[in-house]
Amino acid sequence: MSDATQDVALRRYAGGSGAPGRDAVAREEPLEIRLGGVPLAVVMRTPGDDRELTLGFLTSERVVERPDQVESVRHCQATSEEAEGNVVQVVLAPGVSVDLDRLRRNLYASSSCGICGKATIENALVDAPPLDDPARFAPDFFYGLPVRLEASQVAFAKTGGLHAAGLFDARGELLVAREDVGRHNAVDKVVGWALDRGRFPLGGCVLLVSGRVSYEIVQKALVARVPVVAAVSAPSSLAIEFAQQARLTLVAFLRGRSLNVYGAAERVAGLASDPGVAERAAARDAPG
Amino acid sequence: MSDATQDVALRRYAGGSGAPGRDAVAREEPLEIRLGGVPLAVVMRTPGDDRELTLGFLTSERVVERPDQVESVRHCQATSEEAEGNVVQVVLAPGVSVDLDRLRRNLYASSSCGICGKATIENALVDAPPLDDPARFAPDFFYGLPVRLEASQVAFAKTGGLHAAGLFDARGELLVAREDVGRHNAVDKVVGWALDRGRFPLGGCVLLVSGRVSYEIVQKALVARVPVVAAVSAPSSLAIEFAQQARLTLVAFLRGRSLNVYGAAERVAGLASDPGVAERAAARDAPG
Repeated sequence: MSDATQDVALRRYAGGSGAPGRDAVAREEPLEIRLGGVPLAVVMRTPGDDRELTLGFLTSERVVERPDQVESVRHCQATSEEAEGNVVQVVLAPGVSVDLDRLRRNLYASSSCGICGKATIENALVDAPPLDDPARFAPDFFYGLPVRLEASQVAFAKTGGLHAAGLFDARGELLVAREDVGRHNAVDKVVGWALDRGRFPLGGCVLLVSGRVSYEIVQKALVARVPVVAAVSAPSSLAIEFAQQARLTLVAFLRGRSLNVYGAAERVAGLASDPGVAERAAARDAPG
Repeated sequence: MSDATQDVALRRYAGGSGAPGRDAVAREEPLEIRLGGVPLAVVMRTPGDDRELTLGFLTSERVVERPDQVESVRHCQATSEEAEGNVVQVVLAPGVSVDLDRLRRNLYASSSCGICGKATIENALVDAPPLDDPARFAPDFFYGLPVRLEASQVAFAKTGGLHAAGLFDARGELLVAREDVGRHNAVDKVVGWALDRGRFPLGGCVLLVSGRVSYEIVQKALVARVPVVAAVSAPSSLAIEFAQQARLTLVAFLRGRSLNVYGAAERVAGLASDPGVAERAAARDAPG
């Protein structure tokens, strides 16, 4: 399948000499999401999982809370040939209403108002309370995950141009992996996948992202009730503050057999709740 | 200076054993941009260059076209202590007016309407016509740039958590480099820097970004009239299509002594306009 990539012409240079060539690049196209006929948002995304992206977006933005609140998500008949496939129409279930003004304020403001990090977080926590998920993971649980996510990054392998998000269950099984030019979209697609299959909310799971962790990634995870977000790269200050207040565990710089834990650190075994585990694991890992 | 970074507590694991530690992370805070007292947008950004970010944002979104259209950009007195420093008030020069409705449509839609890549590009090209910048560059010009941008990425070196954008003139001099948790913001800060110093528009220059190139990066470059965008990583399909139509040169996968050219390839010397240059350079570069 090739929705996610596109073949383009280019000129390739090595040293001073160039030659014409062709290569696959990540596809980026706008998707307009319409709600009851009214345009709600335009998202620059990689085509291919528009239904999941839309469901995830509607959930992250708290338009809906459960899958049965959405009656249908369908691509519209477009006004032009080029627009074909780039407009989706959402119909909510009978009796489900949306405060469009509130929603637009949220979209405008990325859930912020006050305007400080603290107000942003407090506002986001109003509708999605802190987590009390009892899930616990040994550090070893995490070390193999990035390689397994990477193995599923088909379009990235061809283009080097997409972010990825993957969802793992408590036994370490990769439930779903999605790619996108936008890192938020990859997470929305994963959340939409879960909604679509009745696996929502995502208690006990780990969300792994291929890049960095910003505020918005952690906020999306909280709405989906994922207790642990793991990332190959760095977290931002606001992502960490948010994780602390939401009692969400943030694992970052997950590389080889090392990682950093921020936020609700007790979900990584061997910490405060059971100080002995880390020491036992260390003894087991020690050479000789 | 440390506006861009923040010290946080963490738990560091290697193998099975963990220990408490501290590390610097990239700061992320919302910035509300107000125009004539009315909230215009909230941007999640790394604090420290708010004036430049605001000027660049206003230019990218085509609120203003010249620096003299802005009378002042000032941090507001915040309503709370935490919000301090996170709200800026823009006052336009007398006689300068803004179509707020049009602007909000643009912000909503990232300049798209139709909704296809073609419509997105055509819409963006309405106000910023294609480039006819005569600048030409040898491939060698580009090879040293990423290392020099990296040398200026002070906060990235400490945190691993920021994108960077740098502006080079035709002689290869680094005019300015800026970092941010958001890749678009880093570009807006560079554009704002140029506006603030009367160096706008940016004919003859090269904009280098540390990561990937999406549609929006190329669109910002076009508005700033930068003829060449160079990137260490991959371009998206829409970035390439946009570069082609805008006659903008897109250099990507700029690593070591190799690169790919997309869009208006004639600005990289040795191509169609002067087929001999590449061969001469190749002969010079050849070992022995």
